[in-house]
Amino acid sequence: MGWRYATKKFDATRKIPQAEWAALEDALVLSPSSFGLQPWKFLVLTDQAKKDALVPVSWGQTQIAEASHVVVFAVRHPLGEADVRAHIDRTAEVRGISRDDLKAFEDIVLGFVGRPAETFDVRSWCARQVYIAMGTFMTAAALLGIDTCPMEGIDPAAYDRILGLEGSGYQTLAACPAGYRDPADKYATLPKVRFPKDRVIIHLH
Amino acid sequence: MGWRYATKKFDATRKIPQAEWAALEDALVLSPSSFGLQPWKFLVLTDQAKKDALVPVSWGQTQIAEASHVVVFAVRHPLGEADVRAHIDRTAEVRGISRDDLKAFEDIVLGFVGRPAETFDVRSWCARQVYIAMGTFMTAAALLGIDTCPMEGIDPAAYDRILGLEGSGYQTLAACPAGYRDPADKYATLPKVRFPKDRVIIHLH
Repeated sequence: MGWRYATKKFDATRKIPQAEWAALEDALVLSPSSFGLQPWKFLVLTDQAKKDALVPVSWGQTQIAEASHVVVFAVRHPLGEADVRAHIDRTAEVRGISRDDLKAFEDIVLGFVGRPAETFDVRSWCARQVYIAMGTFMTAAALLGIDTCPMEGIDPAAYDRILGLEGSGYQTLAACPAGYRDPADKYATLPKVRFPKDRVIIHLH
Repeated sequence: MGWRYATKKFDATRKIPQAEWAALEDALVLSPSSFGLQPWKFLVLTDQAKKDALVPVSWGQTQIAEASHVVVFAVRHPLGEADVRAHIDRTAEVRGISRDDLKAFEDIVLGFVGRPAETFDVRSWCARQVYIAMGTFMTAAALLGIDTCPMEGIDPAAYDRILGLEGSGYQTLAACPAGYRDPADKYATLPKVRFPKDRVIIHLH
């Protein structure tokens, strides 16, 4: 975690090897989420023209074009009963049990996500789950020596249009280029800025 | 990531060694956040009486009492100009540069967080950052062979009261017990439920 930083310039000539990329995809798939609902899709771009097309709707940030891979993190919206049922179906399938055995759990989840919109913002809640996956992805990448740069400073509606997400039930939240830092990226060697540990971590023992 | 699961029963006799816990605290401190603002505090509980006191406000989930450590993830609220200035001060200090050299960046961040509440929910945005840290924490823990169980199903207001957060400018979002699975936890060996990879990861090349 000390090695990683928000990479400002990627080496456009270096590509992430297939085996390592597959491991990162596994980390994304295995990310935890509330109730296991996985309210997300992860779009992966490696095609140069497709990456280039996103730069103008990413405030001109060229990491999108230069990085080996770009992951676009999309949130399920709206999430509803059908999503809960799909998850219960999948649980029954993977664990080889009856759907009936999952009825109590299903009712809890349906009750939770079905609360009135005035008291529960289901999109915000789903978005938080997606950010768990972002944390998982960046941490797993750093461990494999792969650089990343999380980006919220993009135009999500334009991403949705360019990536064909409009009407899909998924919406862009953020992008994360991944690859290898350019040796000339001066940000790589700047001291990392964090508040002192004792300001951030409070021991209550 | 395949090894980890949301641990339902911890072995109350096993404690996380100090060196490994310190590594996890480092991972928390080093978690990425938008603009580097770190809009969070991480409260760490190891005292048995303090952990026990949280069980009744955690829907009776005993992992809180049994786990070696409990991290409570708290979000900064409200986040405002003073937080931005503190981060700029810290950046100048850590990098040994003048605050003036950071003026352009500071103005961007101030403009971003200062947008009208009707168009920008700063608390939701900060909460998403906290969830990046949750993902970082659970991933780092799994790599060290330490079990976790993320918990949103708690009473945040009661946590704030019990932990002394009321009026602190930080609010409980979620808790995460950490420790070692009890050999009798039958959930440890259940097949992990995830949607098929090709449903979750979409390749656009």
